[in-house]
Amino acid sequence: MSHDNIEFILVDPSHPGNVGAAARAIGTMGFRNLSLVNPDKHPHPESRARSAGALDILLNAKVSETLDEAIADSSLVIGTTARQRRISVPIDSIHESAESIFKTSLKQKVSIIFGPETSGLSNDDIDRCNRLVYIPTGEMYSSLNLAMAVQVIAYQINLAFFGIEEDQPTRDLASGKEMELFYEHLEKVLLETGFLNPKNPKQLMRRLKALFNRAQLDDNEVNIMRGILTSYQKRRVK
Amino acid sequence: MSHDNIEFILVDPSHPGNVGAAARAIGTMGFRNLSLVNPDKHPHPESRARSAGALDILLNAKVSETLDEAIADSSLVIGTTARQRRISVPIDSIHESAESIFKTSLKQKVSIIFGPETSGLSNDDIDRCNRLVYIPTGEMYSSLNLAMAVQVIAYQINLAFFGIEEDQPTRDLASGKEMELFYEHLEKVLLETGFLNPKNPKQLMRRLKALFNRAQLDDNEVNIMRGILTSYQKRRVK
Repeated sequence: MSHDNIEFILVDPSHPGNVGAAARAIGTMGFRNLSLVNPDKHPHPESRARSAGALDILLNAKVSETLDEAIADSSLVIGTTARQRRISVPIDSIHESAESIFKTSLKQKVSIIFGPETSGLSNDDIDRCNRLVYIPTGEMYSSLNLAMAVQVIAYQINLAFFGIEEDQPTRDLASGKEMELFYEHLEKVLLETGFLNPKNPKQLMRRLKALFNRAQLDDNEVNIMRGILTSYQKRRVK
Repeated sequence: MSHDNIEFILVDPSHPGNVGAAARAIGTMGFRNLSLVNPDKHPHPESRARSAGALDILLNAKVSETLDEAIADSSLVIGTTARQRRISVPIDSIHESAESIFKTSLKQKVSIIFGPETSGLSNDDIDRCNRLVYIPTGEMYSSLNLAMAVQVIAYQINLAFFGIEEDQPTRDLASGKEMELFYEHLEKVLLETGFLNPKNPKQLMRRLKALFNRAQLDDNEVNIMRGILTSYQKRRVK
């Protein structure tokens, strides 16, 4: 299971709330490996509370004193950064690089590292990275909360695991014949109400067909619509 | 600027921290419009703290008592859900649908709505949605924090803004207010014809709303549908 080959490392995190929220964030995306380098407060009641249903991930987090220790057995180290600051290290958006991270993780261990809340990764940390990734943001304000950044990156890498789009739940769509009978019924009633001009019913009927075709009615819905038409006709007879 | 045509609506949010974090989340992705329906605590020191550099977004948030009021001038209403629970409302991953949301927002107002932390959107809320989106998650644990969900969806829609040409032909979709008036008119007429049971009109109305929401009616089509209803009412008077 390649999710298990990916590890999220928080370097010098200062807020326990962010540590707990990061545990939850990776948990929702099917990842289990959280690693903390020199955390300010750990364990802590606030990180427990924010981890919600991912408490096990928080409690099993690896804790190291140095980044070197944390990444000792990693084959690919990805640094996260808000800025394109080091042209010597290749940098891509997480959107562009998620697939290659995923592919590497099929056979080898990948570490994704996040710097402290206020300063981001240091130059020394970045020197340990094979690649950098950034999260595309708006221009005016680009400062994601640490746990939010973990969430977005975990989300984007997890997407790469879905090779094929998931199947849409299917409804039993009405057949062409059923739709034809519905449209005949509709036209008849609208001629009775006077809504359609008997000399030129076609144009409005085309618009109505376009509307209902777009909605892709299922069997049940055709029955409801025809029930409405019938309820009108019965009322007229009385 | 089409970012400004997209609005993020939190329905009944209970934790002010989430409200503040949601403001920051949308701010980092270049969005500015936060809307709160019946917030439990607002304004609140914790939401201010968590909004960080997006305090202006929090302070300018629109506050409404009802969802109907919040979406009154929206042409496209997108509900967010963790489950594929209503097959009558189209559902896609945010990954698949971000581009079409973006294209609609080039000319028309789009609302993206998020339910309360614990329960998600109610069936009544979902009845007001044209489409549903979900965030693909891991299988074992899929419960994203509210503000995290806002972050991922804002991120994914913002991605669609990069590199897509603005040349999609668009229809003038009817506003939420116009749709609400149409549904009221429809319900009234169906009570008159006897199609709806006066003691329990809701269930069938829900199915009808799902059908018409799916079709995404434009102004002209709403006029046609209401013309049909009026033609019936005039006929009855004679």
